[in-house]
Amino acid sequence: MKKRIFVGVALFAAFLAVVVLDIFWLNFAIFGVLLAIAVLESLKLYGLKEKSLAVIAVAFFTLLPFIGGIQDIFKIILLNLIVVASVLAYTKNENLKIILPFIYPTAPMFMLFAIYQSYGIAALFWLIFSVVASDSGAYFIGKFFGKRNFSASSPNKTLEGVVGGFVIGSVFGVAAGLFLMDIDFLIVILCSVSVVIFGIFGDLFESYLKRLAGVKDSGVILGEQGGLLDRMDGYLFGVLAMYMVLV
Amino acid sequence: MKKRIFVGVALFAAFLAVVVLDIFWLNFAIFGVLLAIAVLESLKLYGLKEKSLAVIAVAFFTLLPFIGGIQDIFKIILLNLIVVASVLAYTKNENLKIILPFIYPTAPMFMLFAIYQSYGIAALFWLIFSVVASDSGAYFIGKFFGKRNFSASSPNKTLEGVVGGFVIGSVFGVAAGLFLMDIDFLIVILCSVSVVIFGIFGDLFESYLKRLAGVKDSGVILGEQGGLLDRMDGYLFGVLAMYMVLV
Repeated sequence: MKKRIFVGVALFAAFLAVVVLDIFWLNFAIFGVLLAIAVLESLKLYGLKEKSLAVIAVAFFTLLPFIGGIQDIFKIILLNLIVVASVLAYTKNENLKIILPFIYPTAPMFMLFAIYQSYGIAALFWLIFSVVASDSGAYFIGKFFGKRNFSASSPNKTLEGVVGGFVIGSVFGVAAGLFLMDIDFLIVILCSVSVVIFGIFGDLFESYLKRLAGVKDSGVILGEQGGLLDRMDGYLFGVLAMYMVLV
Repeated sequence: MKKRIFVGVALFAAFLAVVVLDIFWLNFAIFGVLLAIAVLESLKLYGLKEKSLAVIAVAFFTLLPFIGGIQDIFKIILLNLIVVASVLAYTKNENLKIILPFIYPTAPMFMLFAIYQSYGIAALFWLIFSVVASDSGAYFIGKFFGKRNFSASSPNKTLEGVVGGFVIGSVFGVAAGLFLMDIDFLIVILCSVSVVIFGIFGDLFESYLKRLAGVKDSGVILGEQGGLLDRMDGYLFGVLAMYMVLV
């Protein structure tokens, strides 16, 4: 448990350093590495062995700095999916599942970077802060008041915890949004609330994938904190909410 | 063979009638029905039984007339995917495959309608004309000059046929685009060529899915012409090319 907290604090410090420095090409490089790790971890979830998929995902990722605005992110996602689907069909590869890592986690990872490109690091900080507040709220409220199970996909989550996480995440998210972002008050509220709701389901979706695959964690890179996908699950759905509200 | 040609002519006449009439809510209704059929046919390809998925796809489709421009099509696609993924995770449904019909054919069907909403029926006519010209070109060139097999996914396709289809589709596509669309010459060329290339791979992808599933046709609705997806395969990839170039 102590080690888990230590890793958490170290991660947060590293993230703060990245936010304060905010060097575009450094962030680009870090994101490329995170993307590769995320795709490699997803192989386990989907029962795949093709490590080369991470190389393909990163190759499409390197197109991002050279395209226009955030709208174009979908062109890259589409191009990626069509090329992979076409190559699968052309080579008559029997494993249709190879498309899956390009839908999740690759597509949301591309969107995270596109949000950063268009709205700056503050938007990512806002997203992460909202989801962390929601997770922490859910943990503590669930620990003290949790009684009813929320979903069969995640036996550790209680309905009370989820509601607490939603309320606490929304309140902290709105506060952070007002402080960090130069956008309309109503948009801040809508965005924070959607991010928190989607984040909760992103967490649940990751638990669901892991249960289907019969694994406990998506990886070991963060020690007792598990894998990168275990940490990013909420953001990978939350960013979709942010996109839908902001763009 | 005669019946096949008859169905083809009847389909084309019906399509021409729809193009000439061009009544928005009629087109909306027709598209909703086509979407339901496409999703029902896709169940066979993915080995699913849940016919209710067609209802869910049509429910999200009915949101389309009430959203803004073509950019928003992705919000609907994302919302659809996230809701389905969240419900799967929440109910701990063991069948992750249920997401697949919402990626293909639902997402490209949504985009076809969004292209129609933003660029009018002429754009759809252009798309269909380009793919039909390419298919016909591939058929005749392949029949007379075809020697080398193009891909293991489709034993009937020859390299010569595919190249012939590409050239003929591009030429007819550019001509139709110049006549029908009020856009830049270079954009017309880029769009037609991309649509034809993607259309060829859309055709191949459909053959690939059918071979994986071990079925000959996706459906029986069009008699000897097979199912709706067998007819729409080229458009469902072609529309993604059109989106990437036009939007």
